Amino acid sequence: MQKVKFETDYQEGASPEILALLESSNLEQASGYGEDPHTSRAKELIRRETGRPESAVYFMAGGTQTNTAVIKQLLSPCEGVISVSTGHISVHESGAIESTGHKVITLPGHDGLLDADDLREYMAAFTADPTNEHMVQPGMVYVSYSSELGTLYTKQTLSDIKKVCGDYGLRLFVDGARIGAAVTSEASDMDMRDIAGLCDAFYIGGTKNGALLGEAVVFPKPETVNLRHFTTLIKQQGGLLAKGRLIGIQFEALFTDGLYYRNARHANSQAMKIKRAFTEKGIPFLVDSPTNQQFPILTQSQHEILSAKFSYETWQPMDNGRLAVRFCTSWATTDEAIDALTDTIGKLQA
Amino acid sequence: MQKVKFETDYQEGASPEILALLESSNLEQASGYGEDPHTSRAKELIRRETGRPESAVYFMAGGTQTNTAVIKQLLSPCEGVISVSTGHISVHESGAIESTGHKVITLPGHDGLLDADDLREYMAAFTADPTNEHMVQPGMVYVSYSSELGTLYTKQTLSDIKKVCGDYGLRLFVDGARIGAAVTSEASDMDMRDIAGLCDAFYIGGTKNGALLGEAVVFPKPETVNLRHFTTLIKQQGGLLAKGRLIGIQFEALFTDGLYYRNARHANSQAMKIKRAFTEKGIPFLVDSPTNQQFPILTQSQHEILSAKFSYETWQPMDNGRLAVRFCTSWATTDEAIDALTDTIGKLQA
Amino acid sequence: MQKVKFETDYQEGASPEILALLESSNLEQASGYGEDPHTSRAKELIRRETGRPESAVYFMAGGTQTNTAVIKQLLSPCEGVISVSTGHISVHESGAIESTGHKVITLPGHDGLLDADDLREYMAAFTADPTNEHMVQPGMVYVSYSSELGTLYTKQTLSDIKKVCGDYGLRLFVDGARIGAAVTSEASDMDMRDIAGLCDAFYIGGTKNGALLGEAVVFPKPETVNLRHFTTLIKQQGGLLAKGRLIGIQFEALFTDGLYYRNARHANSQAMKIKRAFTEKGIPFLVDSPTNQQFPILTQSQHEILSAKFSYETWQPMDNGRLAVRFCTSWATTDEAIDALTDTIGKLQA
Amino acid sequence: MQKVKFETDYQEGASPEILALLESSNLEQASGYGEDPHTSRAKELIRRETGRPESAVYFMAGGTQTNTAVIKQLLSPCEGVISVSTGHISVHESGAIESTGHKVITLPGHDGLLDADDLREYMAAFTADPTNEHMVQPGMVYVSYSSELGTLYTKQTLSDIKKVCGDYGLRLFVDGARIGAAVTSEASDMDMRDIAGLCDAFYIGGTKNGALLGEAVVFPKPETVNLRHFTTLIKQQGGLLAKGRLIGIQFEALFTDGLYYRNARHANSQAMKIKRAFTEKGIPFLVDSPTNQQFPILTQSQHEILSAKFSYETWQPMDNGRLAVRFCTSWATTDEAIDALTDTIGKLQA
Repeated sequence: MQKVKFETDYQEGASPEILALLESSNLEQASGYGEDPHTSRAKELIRRETGRPESAVYFMAGGTQTNTAVIKQLLSPCEGVISVSTGHISVHESGAIESTGHKVITLPGHDGLLDADDLREYMAAFTADPTNEHMVQPGMVYVSYSSELGTLYTKQTLSDIKKVCGDYGLRLFVDGARIGAAVTSEASDMDMRDIAGLCDAFYIGGTKNGALLGEAVVFPKPETVNLRHFTTLIKQQGGLLAKGRLIGIQFEALFTDGLYYRNARHANSQAMKIKRAFTEKGIPFLVDSPTNQQFPILTQSQHEILSAKFSYETWQPMDNGRLAVRFCTSWATTDEAIDALTDTIGKLQA
Repeated sequence: MQKVKFETDYQEGASPEILALLESSNLEQASGYGEDPHTSRAKELIRRETGRPESAVYFMAGGTQTNTAVIKQLLSPCEGVISVSTGHISVHESGAIESTGHKVITLPGHDGLLDADDLREYMAAFTADPTNEHMVQPGMVYVSYSSELGTLYTKQTLSDIKKVCGDYGLRLFVDGARIGAAVTSEASDMDMRDIAGLCDAFYIGGTKNGALLGEAVVFPKPETVNLRHFTTLIKQQGGLLAKGRLIGIQFEALFTDGLYYRNARHANSQAMKIKRAFTEKGIPFLVDSPTNQQFPILTQSQHEILSAKFSYETWQPMDNGRLAVRFCTSWATTDEAIDALTDTIGKLQA
Repeated sequence: MQKVKFETDYQEGASPEILALLESSNLEQASGYGEDPHTSRAKELIRRETGRPESAVYFMAGGTQTNTAVIKQLLSPCEGVISVSTGHISVHESGAIESTGHKVITLPGHDGLLDADDLREYMAAFTADPTNEHMVQPGMVYVSYSSELGTLYTKQTLSDIKKVCGDYGLRLFVDGARIGAAVTSEASDMDMRDIAGLCDAFYIGGTKNGALLGEAVVFPKPETVNLRHFTTLIKQQGGLLAKGRLIGIQFEALFTDGLYYRNARHANSQAMKIKRAFTEKGIPFLVDSPTNQQFPILTQSQHEILSAKFSYETWQPMDNGRLAVRFCTSWATTDEAIDALTDTIGKLQA
Repeated sequence: MQKVKFETDYQEGASPEILALLESSNLEQASGYGEDPHTSRAKELIRRETGRPESAVYFMAGGTQTNTAVIKQLLSPCEGVISVSTGHISVHESGAIESTGHKVITLPGHDGLLDADDLREYMAAFTADPTNEHMVQPGMVYVSYSSELGTLYTKQTLSDIKKVCGDYGLRLFVDGARIGAAVTSEASDMDMRDIAGLCDAFYIGGTKNGALLGEAVVFPKPETVNLRHFTTLIKQQGGLLAKGRLIGIQFEALFTDGLYYRNARHANSQAMKIKRAFTEKGIPFLVDSPTNQQFPILTQSQHEILSAKFSYETWQPMDNGRLAVRFCTSWATTDEAIDALTDTIGKLQA
């Protein structure tokens, strides 16, 4: 029997509403490369959501592609991008950023988050360094919302980062692969409009919130960034789908009747049940995550019992033979799956 | 009223069989990045089709990505890839190959096809040039089957190219974005097995033959090429979908019960009706294409009449104010659309 | 006995004036990376020569490096550089431009020169092409003065090119590896100031005109191009010498008392003697070159006689078994060498 | 009056023996790009020095270029190079490595040195990580000998690193920009032959040991690394001088009659006098360096007194307002300069 999976938030297909729209639009004839009516509507829906009708919106197939294209577009050849060392672009994108010639400059993270003071200190030291003309020039700050550890910036902490960026001429880019889980978290004090107001570019992840694939890049103030030839760059990076409608249709469905938020809220809510179950057993966490990724620290015997029935990711070894693991929920996580899991957790020895 | 479109072969959605399998498998839980059972089955089906159980098969999202990844993987930093000047990588991929550091070395095409004698002449001159250590080293030959002009290599002409490649240590890569239209053409004397036998790498295009997206790269003799870290490279190029199942499912459907060939045969057959209609009017063609792309040369008045009711691509200006245009059919081109078009052609003034 | 060499203009060491200054300054202590007084003086001398005190001047070690750095600096990621197909960046720089991600877009040359009409036609077709968003965006024009075939633009022909560049937003870059031979040619109607007035960037070649190495890049209107981080880019490209003084000292010597022009005039004058000798024998030329490179077309027997005593470059095979070859003179070509050569030419059978 | 400079080891010109050979060979005619007799002799002298007649030797203009070319040649597209975080390629090469698409993977340094245990731990964790297919693949280890802090590996510690490299299939590359200072240090237990025996590639720095410019790359076991097209790569990277003789002549001089070692020994010996002077005053050091770079930690008042008469590099701020600085000696550092400095040090307040 297959184990119930809590490995990731992309282990099922797509929201039924998306499949229905793919089905009903299937035989419509439309021009390629995003020059179709669904894509136009999807862009309009996203602009509304961000509260900025002047936003420039582009669609791409996946997150690595999106991060790479945005960073390549906004940096000049000698500039690098600053990220916490656990940042996705720093670890799990196979050197995609470097493959375009740009260094990822890493700063230590705090539960996956960048600290504005660390950033300011780094920039002050860089600026004061008489040899800095021989160094990669910091040109951009990359943060994830929610982070790779499920944690969240507050409006204050992100504003603080924004302030440093302003002081030192750095652009601010928010990786929103899991922005749905972020903005719908009970711990969040920001919505899409807040994010749009604070950064130079961000993306709204589809893949991890109910789409088959697809990410929507938003430049909220397009007149302040150089977007010349960006569509050509997307093509060059292999991110321009011939049947661009495939992504347009999905974002059209996701931003109709609040599906995007519903999906994310469901994932978060299922994750909170898992969090509560571990908490009640006194099982500690690697970080206190208010979103759909939970990182309990298990003893070996707890891990043996849980992994016999459920699959989830091992994250990192801890002291005393314990193991930090990740349980991840999605728009599709069923109550049955959660009940089975929390029931098993409830029977664990502390 | 919207015009009937003959612009491309990617202007509709997906074959119903594909949508049905997406639907029925939607809630299956599966690991990401192509580590799912559908992808495994699809790879196995493709290996059977190519007659080489030892083939290495990889899936990627789109054609530009696929060309870029294969070329980057197989070339060393100073090597370039040879293509006819009309080749897709040379013209319509926004410099994607160059963006990875490799030059596209162009030779003149003959109706879109590379001539083995041209290739041999180029290689002989290169080898004899005492300054060639200062030049880009030719490392690979890229051809399209069918070509950008819908034309086909024969088994003999492709074997001749293969022979030159062997003589000069060049790898041979076949872009099969439209391999379906090629192998099902009545003018073709090659099937997938022949292609697999003649080249070092080729890909089977999904996007232009009924899939929503997706291309299948095949290395028929994996032990003779360096595939080390190729999955990592696909990730680096942004070509590894988190929900890899999306492509696996589609190729599973396409290579079940011959859907892939049925789709292509339908497109070709509809194109032949268009070809006949123009031929009967004595309207000449840019090239004699036996596949789903037809390039009639229209007078201005013919173009005005046709473009009032149908949309198609303008290709290139010809003498006397005439215009070469492209009509393209697909798996989804209806008899009604063809009847309407051929009827209008039948009424044109020669 | 070693043959007298007419292979290139970089087969001897350096002008004695340069060696003398290297010697006399040898134990001066100076900061590295071009932050030394000799480099400052050299920059000032070059600014005077170009008639533009506001020029930005940078030094680099070699021509490939210089072309690569300038092109990388001035192009955005999706832009390419236009060159005639015989252009140095297109043929003999091992794909250096492509290695930074940029395509070299080639147009046919006319005796090594770009024709403004060809350029305009290309740009008009590109602009009119509805698919051009999928193509490399032309961003710059590269020309050589003198060209790879020793030929020269006139003020009119270069102004015509400049006009097209202006009309289509292209930057104009002049490779001046042999600008000395160009501006001192009796056929030239342009000096350094004219070049500086017509282009966005050019370089003054040292290596081929009496220096050990070194090229001086000039941006005559620095406020109109983006030079941000250009020193860092030079470092990134490996073009920033630790002992930057080495290049500064040489250009200081070259632009003191007109040495640069004297060297070039000498090379041209020696070449004219060779040209006359061939002309008097009725031996034809590949092109009519007014500078230090001469390309006579030899019969096999003429080639056998000459190559027994002199070394020179074979250029390309011609009809009837004849061979175009290159004789190249330099600042160091002696009268004895010229006499020996012209004497042998004089005895050839026509 | 100009201050006496102890900023770097490249602030003077070249050893008189080098200038003399440049002078005496100046009018010799020689082919370009290193195809001259001086370059051949220099390669032969270096092969002798490394004790490996089968070594492949190449010359390049500078260190950044050399590091970039070697790393680009030996890595495949998804591989990265491991360095301590203070490594030159990680900090002071303007992202040159990343500009060729490769990540610099950093490990913490210990006084500038890589620890074999750290390396083994990193590789063990990488190998065990189930997601490592999505990460940059470690392909090479880069170390400097002497390090950026003047410190040295012992034969044992470098052998330990070599062992880990062997266990995990990593190539080992030694940056020898200051290998002269290293092998002539009294603290060293390795000579060139030992280095050649332990690594896959290393380079012998000319610039920082008496040459005007130039580095000699050595592949001691050329049959075990892929050097195909390496000369073309050097050209592509802009590292192939037209007048290649310029570097050949210098290395010919440096490895005739032991000049290379004499230069380095002189620099070290002068540095030891500085070290003693600081030590006698009880002034501490950032690290205990046995080579030509010394890093005393000065109080503000000590710094004021010294910097009034001498120039040197500030390195990093320390606690209590103190400052770590660098004094660097070279082949050209005079006894007068040392006496003046040690005299001033002797009068400092502790």
